[in-house]
Amino acid sequence: MDYNRQFQDLLAEMKLDGRYRTFAELERMVGQFPQALWHRPDGGTQKVTVWCSNDYLGMGQHPDVLAAMHESIDFSGAGTGGTRNISGTNRQHVSLETELADLHGKEAALIFTSGWISNLAALGTLGRILPNCAIFSDALNHNSMIEGIRRSGAERLIFRHNDAAHLDELMSGVDPDRPKIVAFESVYSMDGDIAPIEAICDIAEKHNAITYLDEVHAVGLYGSRGGGIAEREGLAERLTIIEGTLAKAFGVIGGYVTGPALLIDVIRSMADSFIFTTSLCPHLAAGALAAVRHIKTHPEERSRQAENAAKLKAMLMEANLPVLDTPSHILPVIVGDAHLCRRISERLLNEYSIYVQPINYPTVPRGQERLRVTPTPFHSETDMRSLVDALVAIDRDLGWTGIRSAA
Amino acid sequence: MDYNRQFQDLLAEMKLDGRYRTFAELERMVGQFPQALWHRPDGGTQKVTVWCSNDYLGMGQHPDVLAAMHESIDFSGAGTGGTRNISGTNRQHVSLETELADLHGKEAALIFTSGWISNLAALGTLGRILPNCAIFSDALNHNSMIEGIRRSGAERLIFRHNDAAHLDELMSGVDPDRPKIVAFESVYSMDGDIAPIEAICDIAEKHNAITYLDEVHAVGLYGSRGGGIAEREGLAERLTIIEGTLAKAFGVIGGYVTGPALLIDVIRSMADSFIFTTSLCPHLAAGALAAVRHIKTHPEERSRQAENAAKLKAMLMEANLPVLDTPSHILPVIVGDAHLCRRISERLLNEYSIYVQPINYPTVPRGQERLRVTPTPFHSETDMRSLVDALVAIDRDLGWTGIRSAA
Repeated sequence: MDYNRQFQDLLAEMKLDGRYRTFAELERMVGQFPQALWHRPDGGTQKVTVWCSNDYLGMGQHPDVLAAMHESIDFSGAGTGGTRNISGTNRQHVSLETELADLHGKEAALIFTSGWISNLAALGTLGRILPNCAIFSDALNHNSMIEGIRRSGAERLIFRHNDAAHLDELMSGVDPDRPKIVAFESVYSMDGDIAPIEAICDIAEKHNAITYLDEVHAVGLYGSRGGGIAEREGLAERLTIIEGTLAKAFGVIGGYVTGPALLIDVIRSMADSFIFTTSLCPHLAAGALAAVRHIKTHPEERSRQAENAAKLKAMLMEANLPVLDTPSHILPVIVGDAHLCRRISERLLNEYSIYVQPINYPTVPRGQERLRVTPTPFHSETDMRSLVDALVAIDRDLGWTGIRSAA
Repeated sequence: MDYNRQFQDLLAEMKLDGRYRTFAELERMVGQFPQALWHRPDGGTQKVTVWCSNDYLGMGQHPDVLAAMHESIDFSGAGTGGTRNISGTNRQHVSLETELADLHGKEAALIFTSGWISNLAALGTLGRILPNCAIFSDALNHNSMIEGIRRSGAERLIFRHNDAAHLDELMSGVDPDRPKIVAFESVYSMDGDIAPIEAICDIAEKHNAITYLDEVHAVGLYGSRGGGIAEREGLAERLTIIEGTLAKAFGVIGGYVTGPALLIDVIRSMADSFIFTTSLCPHLAAGALAAVRHIKTHPEERSRQAENAAKLKAMLMEANLPVLDTPSHILPVIVGDAHLCRRISERLLNEYSIYVQPINYPTVPRGQERLRVTPTPFHSETDMRSLVDALVAIDRDLGWTGIRSAA
């Protein structure tokens, strides 16, 4: 067995495919978001405008968030030094969990070191402990939900994306007495479309299923208090579990689930990936708590973000650029070829100081490669104009929109 | 299907078993470690001495670490707002990875949001991409390694704990041409014993296997620069991959792997749990970097910790308390019954202001329930005397050491 050869071959294949990822080394700068300093591979630096961040509202630099973190570090230090069970539960965790439960109108919440882990832990545990459980999973669910479902060992039935009728059909084919979970997202990250939550809840209720909604791309952004799409549509109480993240609109790091106290206690008590992990640092919980509290009572940031998303979408459409007409803040500009996608991104960065990472397989299916553009409240009209003009100029050169229509 | 009944039954069973966990709500206090403020369930607070923290050296409150975090927050803010690939790679990540590779004498390193994820990602990926791979796993490996191996889909062969001869026997039974990984730990968290690394490397080499060593309870604590047991024994270069944590001796949060550049690139490029997760906050990487740098050149903390561990062990033995005679800083005091273990812990906390969490199943096997005591450089001789006296007093009352010998 020649291990190196095996590894070289794998990476060579990825490079050939255009799937090999090169990370842009950035330096975020408080007060200048969405500008950041790019450390070029040649050792130089260059100021760039970031157009692909999930720090959707710039809360990662909000004074309240940073002040809460500083204060907590001064008082409680850095890490917790333990799992939640073994000296790792701190006052800040408990306060944040109370706040998150309130945000979604649920009895209880549980925080994790990431959103990825929260899905793995929650779905992995529920599917495992409910005997003979069947999990109905939207075809475009995130990798972490898929991993959780796989890990659970439960039967997985995939319904067509956002298709409540197909869900009904699949559920009707399963023994009514079996435990069932319907797992889906509200805003889908890569296409920016939104689930028919009410229709899915109707079907789930008809079949006596637990509903599990991933709102990571919606919490902080939708609903009168930032509780997500479920809150906006008055449906939060119909979801058994709402899962969210502290790392996107709330600007920090970590993930969480909220739901009935009993069910949250089961996840807390039985999820290996929760039990055997050092808990989130107290100051991270304190920072996230400040972000959630701010967003609950300040709709300004999300209003400005929505305005900017609408404005930029109109500009992209007017320029005949292939942006999907999404109902959310996510604006996918479809390229449809991995190498081309990478080339456009490189030219934007090098020639226009615009940073949008190419999104290739496995994050999106092959042939669906794209630039995923995320306007924030801090992008100016000049930033938007520069982005649109740059994309048009590169198109004149590479004809990439034409390549796509021809495909 | 009555979901609530199912959940209630599960929790009731755990309670009956003594496995149900209650988290002690603490407030860490910089400058007073290992003292912390306990928020009692009755709403009051009580200062307690923590004896079960994995902030082994108190780096979670070290001025260099906290200063680096403050500075980075002021400059770069809170979260990164992205996965490593999509706007989430920051200068601080790259610097920390360079430093960690150097710490272990390896070409490259990759950081993760937790040690749990680093094992899941690395073992899960390697076992999956090496065709027909066989993974040889120590019987007492950590849950995260087991999860990684399971996730990989590779064949898992379990060798008896720390038994190189049994490993050799198992490896001899497998086709020499198959790819092989030997996965083990240096210091085992719950028993505090240490692996025969050299003997295991000899066997692995004989069978042309990749070696994967988890040093999470050793990095920062052993070796002239804190590189772990492998460094102390001059064996680091014989390990293909060394995995470690930033959340224990380094006092912050996160995990990492170090190894050959090619192999680390494969994990970086192919591990879902790495690809689809928001990256560690820049200031956490900055804090961890300060901790690693401090520890590399300052053996004082780990020397004092080793002295305190030796001193406390002698005191426990002199008092005829059932402490395992371990070669590491971890001092397990065996109780052997889940309910009793919990009662001792509760009495220590309530009557003596001493906090040692009971360690019950599934963290240790049933019948092996224990108090896991971890002396730090900051525990005083008075702290130690109080702990030993309290354990003796509770034994006079409950006769717990006698119960154990009778079992």
